[in-house]
Amino acid sequence: MFETAELGNSVAKGDYDARVPGVRVDLINAQYDLRSADFPVVVLLTGDDRAGVGEVLNVLHQWMDTRFVQSFAFGARREEERERPRFLRYWNALPRKGQLAFFVGDWSTSLLADHLGGEIDDAAFACGLDHVERFERTLVEDGTLLLKFWLHLPKKKLKRRLEQARKNDSAALRIDSVDRRLYRNYDGLLPHAEHLIRKTSSAAARWQIVEGTDPAYRNLTVAEGILAAVKARLDAHESVPAARTIAIPDLDPHTTVLGSVDLEASIPYDDYKATLLDLQGRLRELVARARKKGVATVLMFEGWDAAGKGGAIRRITHALDARDYRTVAIAAPTEEEHAHHYLWRFWRQLPRDGQLAIFDRSWYGRVLVERVEGFARDDEWRRAFAEINDFEDQLVLHGVALCKFWLHIDADEQLRRFQAREKTPYKKYKIGEDDYRNRDKWDAYVAAIDEMVARTSSELAPWSLVPANDKRFARIAILRTVCDAMKRALKRV
Amino acid sequence: MFETAELGNSVAKGDYDARVPGVRVDLINAQYDLRSADFPVVVLLTGDDRAGVGEVLNVLHQWMDTRFVQSFAFGARREEERERPRFLRYWNALPRKGQLAFFVGDWSTSLLADHLGGEIDDAAFACGLDHVERFERTLVEDGTLLLKFWLHLPKKKLKRRLEQARKNDSAALRIDSVDRRLYRNYDGLLPHAEHLIRKTSSAAARWQIVEGTDPAYRNLTVAEGILAAVKARLDAHESVPAARTIAIPDLDPHTTVLGSVDLEASIPYDDYKATLLDLQGRLRELVARARKKGVATVLMFEGWDAAGKGGAIRRITHALDARDYRTVAIAAPTEEEHAHHYLWRFWRQLPRDGQLAIFDRSWYGRVLVERVEGFARDDEWRRAFAEINDFEDQLVLHGVALCKFWLHIDADEQLRRFQAREKTPYKKYKIGEDDYRNRDKWDAYVAAIDEMVARTSSELAPWSLVPANDKRFARIAILRTVCDAMKRALKRV
Repeated sequence: MFETAELGNSVAKGDYDARVPGVRVDLINAQYDLRSADFPVVVLLTGDDRAGVGEVLNVLHQWMDTRFVQSFAFGARREEERERPRFLRYWNALPRKGQLAFFVGDWSTSLLADHLGGEIDDAAFACGLDHVERFERTLVEDGTLLLKFWLHLPKKKLKRRLEQARKNDSAALRIDSVDRRLYRNYDGLLPHAEHLIRKTSSAAARWQIVEGTDPAYRNLTVAEGILAAVKARLDAHESVPAARTIAIPDLDPHTTVLGSVDLEASIPYDDYKATLLDLQGRLRELVARARKKGVATVLMFEGWDAAGKGGAIRRITHALDARDYRTVAIAAPTEEEHAHHYLWRFWRQLPRDGQLAIFDRSWYGRVLVERVEGFARDDEWRRAFAEINDFEDQLVLHGVALCKFWLHIDADEQLRRFQAREKTPYKKYKIGEDDYRNRDKWDAYVAAIDEMVARTSSELAPWSLVPANDKRFARIAILRTVCDAMKRALKRV
Repeated sequence: MFETAELGNSVAKGDYDARVPGVRVDLINAQYDLRSADFPVVVLLTGDDRAGVGEVLNVLHQWMDTRFVQSFAFGARREEERERPRFLRYWNALPRKGQLAFFVGDWSTSLLADHLGGEIDDAAFACGLDHVERFERTLVEDGTLLLKFWLHLPKKKLKRRLEQARKNDSAALRIDSVDRRLYRNYDGLLPHAEHLIRKTSSAAARWQIVEGTDPAYRNLTVAEGILAAVKARLDAHESVPAARTIAIPDLDPHTTVLGSVDLEASIPYDDYKATLLDLQGRLRELVARARKKGVATVLMFEGWDAAGKGGAIRRITHALDARDYRTVAIAAPTEEEHAHHYLWRFWRQLPRDGQLAIFDRSWYGRVLVERVEGFARDDEWRRAFAEINDFEDQLVLHGVALCKFWLHIDADEQLRRFQAREKTPYKKYKIGEDDYRNRDKWDAYVAAIDEMVARTSSELAPWSLVPANDKRFARIAILRTVCDAMKRALKRV
C-alpha cells in the first residue's frame, strides 16, 4: 500500500517558490468563503512520518489565516478525559459549520498507538476500528468535509531525518510519548497502519497517503489537497452529500410495541407507599456505591405529554443527594447547537464517572418530534437510528448504567390529565392550544415510536416501555429498573 | 455576629406542614417566570453547619423543578482547574440570564478552608477577600441576583447533629476534605468567618445568617429568602440595579496618550530582517521553556483598522509550533455569550498553563467599539475599567505572561492602506463602505483609547502603544515586548 508513496516524488525549488504564493492566496480566500458555508471541515494529519506531521501543520498555519483555524493535538488522555467515554474529547473539539479544524493525534492515531504499545489486543483494535468507522460516517453523513492525510516516509529516510532534526533544532522536533511508541515499533507499525487505512477508507472519508521524502512535495500535496476538496464542496452548493437510500422494511401493523403495553397495570396505594420507600432506600445505597466506584448513570425519559415524566423523575431525585445528579431538560437547540451534529449537545451533557444524569427528553427527539413534525429531513432521521445505537454502545462500553424509558398512556388518559392541569396552581403546567393540537398526530407518533423501539432496543441498551395510566405503577416500575441497571453496572467493575 | 442566630428560632411542625405546600407552588411558579427574565440567579449556600448545607440543598431540590436548577459543588481543585486562574471554574459555572444556580463550596468557602488549613496566610486571605468582593460586585452590577446564605449552628448543637447523622444514615452525611478541615478548626473558624462575612457584605450582596438549630425553620427561611428576592426582582421589571454614578475626572486634552506616540519611528530593512530572525529565535526558545515550566502567555492586540495586527500576529506565530498556541478572533458575541457577563467568553478562552493564546481584538471592545457605537450603556462601559483591571490582575496573579498592544497609525496612513487593500487578491481584506464610514468617528475613538489606557495601564498589566506607521518597526517592537514579558514571567516561577 505504501509503495506508491516511496517513488521519490519531489517538487523542484524553483517550482515550489513559484506555486506557494498562489496556494496561499487561494487557501485564505477559501477560508474566507468557508465562513459562510453550512458545513465544517475536519482535517486529520497523521502518519508514520510523525515529525513531518508537525512540520506540515506549522506550514499550513503559516499559509492560512490562523484566526479561522483550530488545531487540536491529542496526546495521552488526561484525568478529566478518562472519566468520560473515549470519543467525548473529539466531539468537544468538532468545529461548527463554517469552521476548519486540524486534528493531530486523532482517534485513528491513538488507537494505533494503543495497539502497538500492547495496551489493547487484536479484538479491541478491531472493535475500535468499527467505532472509528461509524464515528467518521456520522460526521460525513451530517455534512462534515472530512479529509485524512497519512504522511509516509521510507524507513531509512525517517532515521536520517530524525537525526538531522535532532542536530539542527531541538525545538523543531516535538516527540511525545505516542511518537516514541510508534518509532520503537516501526516494523510493526506499517502492517497495522495498512489494516487501519483499509478498514477506515470509504468513498466519503478516504485516506490520502502522502510521500514525505521531499518536504516541498509533501507540503504542496497536503495544501492543494485541502484546497481542492474545500473548493469542490463550496462549488457544489450542496450542504450534504446525496442521501443514501436506506431500505426500511415495513413493520407489521398488527404488532406495534405500544399495543403490547398493558395499560391496565396498577398498584394498590399501600403497596405503592411501602415499595417506593424501599426502592428509594436501595437507590440511595446504589448511588453511594456508584460514586465510590466511579460508575456513571444515564437515565433517559421519553413519553407522551402528561405521561408523568416529571413525577417519576422527582421520585428518583428525592432519594438522591443534590451533588450527585443533574437533571437535563431538552428543549429546542440553541444556535450554537444547531451548527453542530445533533448528538453534539448530548455528548457535552454526559455525566463524569460516579455521577448521574437524568435526561427529560433526549437524543430520541430526532426520530420522534423532529421526524413527525418534519424538522429533520428524511435521510437525517433515518440514519439517526444507527447513530444513536453507536452513541449508546459507547456509553455502555465505558461502563455507564443506561436506562431508557418510554412512558405510555392512552389518548383518553392524556385528555383527562390535560383537563386536570388546567386547574393546577403551577404555571408551568398550563395547557395551551398547541397541546391539544399535538394530539392530532397521535397515530404518526405511534408509528415513529414503534420504529424507534424496533431499531434501537438492544440487549446492551434496551428500551423500557412503562405502562403509565397508573402513575404509581409507572414510578415503581421505573425505580426498580434503575436499581437493577445500576446493580448490573456495578457488578461489571 | 452569630448571636442572633443562636436564639433558638424554630417553626412548629403543624405550622411547617401548613406553609410548605404554598412555598413549593410559589417557588416553581417563580422558576417558571424567571425563565424569560433577563437576569441570572446565583445562590451561595455555605456556613459552619456544613451538614445543614447539604440538607437545605436537597430540600430545595425536592421543592423546586430540578430541570431548571443547576447545582455546583466545588471541592479541592482538580488537575485541569489548577492549570488555569482560580476563578475560572466559577466563571464557567455561572448561569445565563433566566437560570438559577446553587453554589456549594463556592469562592468564599474555599478561601476560608484554605486559610484555616494553613495553606494561605493572613495577607493572602486579605487579598483573596478583595478578589471575592470584586468578583461579586462584577456579577451584581451586571444584573445577577446574588443571594448568600450562611448556615450557623451553635457548637454543642453541631456536635450532637454530627453524631446523630453518623448513627442514622451514613449516606445522608457527605463530609469531604473541606468539611473535615473546617470542623477540626471550629474554634478558629468563627472569627475568620466573621471577618469574611463583614468584608464581603455589601448592599447588593448581603450575607443572610440562618440559624440551623431547627431544620424546619432553616429550610423555610432559606426558601422564603430566595422566593422573596426573586419575586421582588421580577416585579421590579428592571434588568439591572440603577447605575452607580461614577465620577470620571476630565482628562487633559493636551496630553492624550496617543499624541505621545512617535509615529515617525522606523527601522531600516536590513536591520529589520536580522532583528526579526533573532527575536523569533529567542521567542521559540522562550515558548519551549514556558511549555516545560507551565507558564501561560496571553497576547492581546487592539488597534486601528488596517494598523497591521494580522501581520504582527503572523510574525509571532511563524516562530511557534502550531500545537503551542491558539489565535482567538473576537467578533460580535453569540446569543449564548450575550446571555452572560461580557467577560465570560474571554475567561473561557484562556490558555492552560504552558500554552499561548493570541487575542485579535479583546475584552477592551467594551470600552472601545461598544462605548463609541453605543452598544454598551454608559454605566456598563464605565464599570468595565475596574472589571478589566480585576480580570487582568487575576491572570498575572496566576503567573500568566500578559501583553496588551495598541497598534497606532494616523488617519492618512489608514487611508493609504485601505486604498492598497482594494487591490489585494485576498478577499478578506476587501474594503467596504463601512470601513470608510468608521473613519468619521476617529476623534471619539481617540478619546476612548485615551481613557482606556489611563484607567487600565498598570505596572502589572501595562499597555504597549506601538507606533505602526512603519509596519516593520511595529513588528520588532511587539516581538521584543513579548520576549521580555515571557522572560519576566519565567523568572517568577
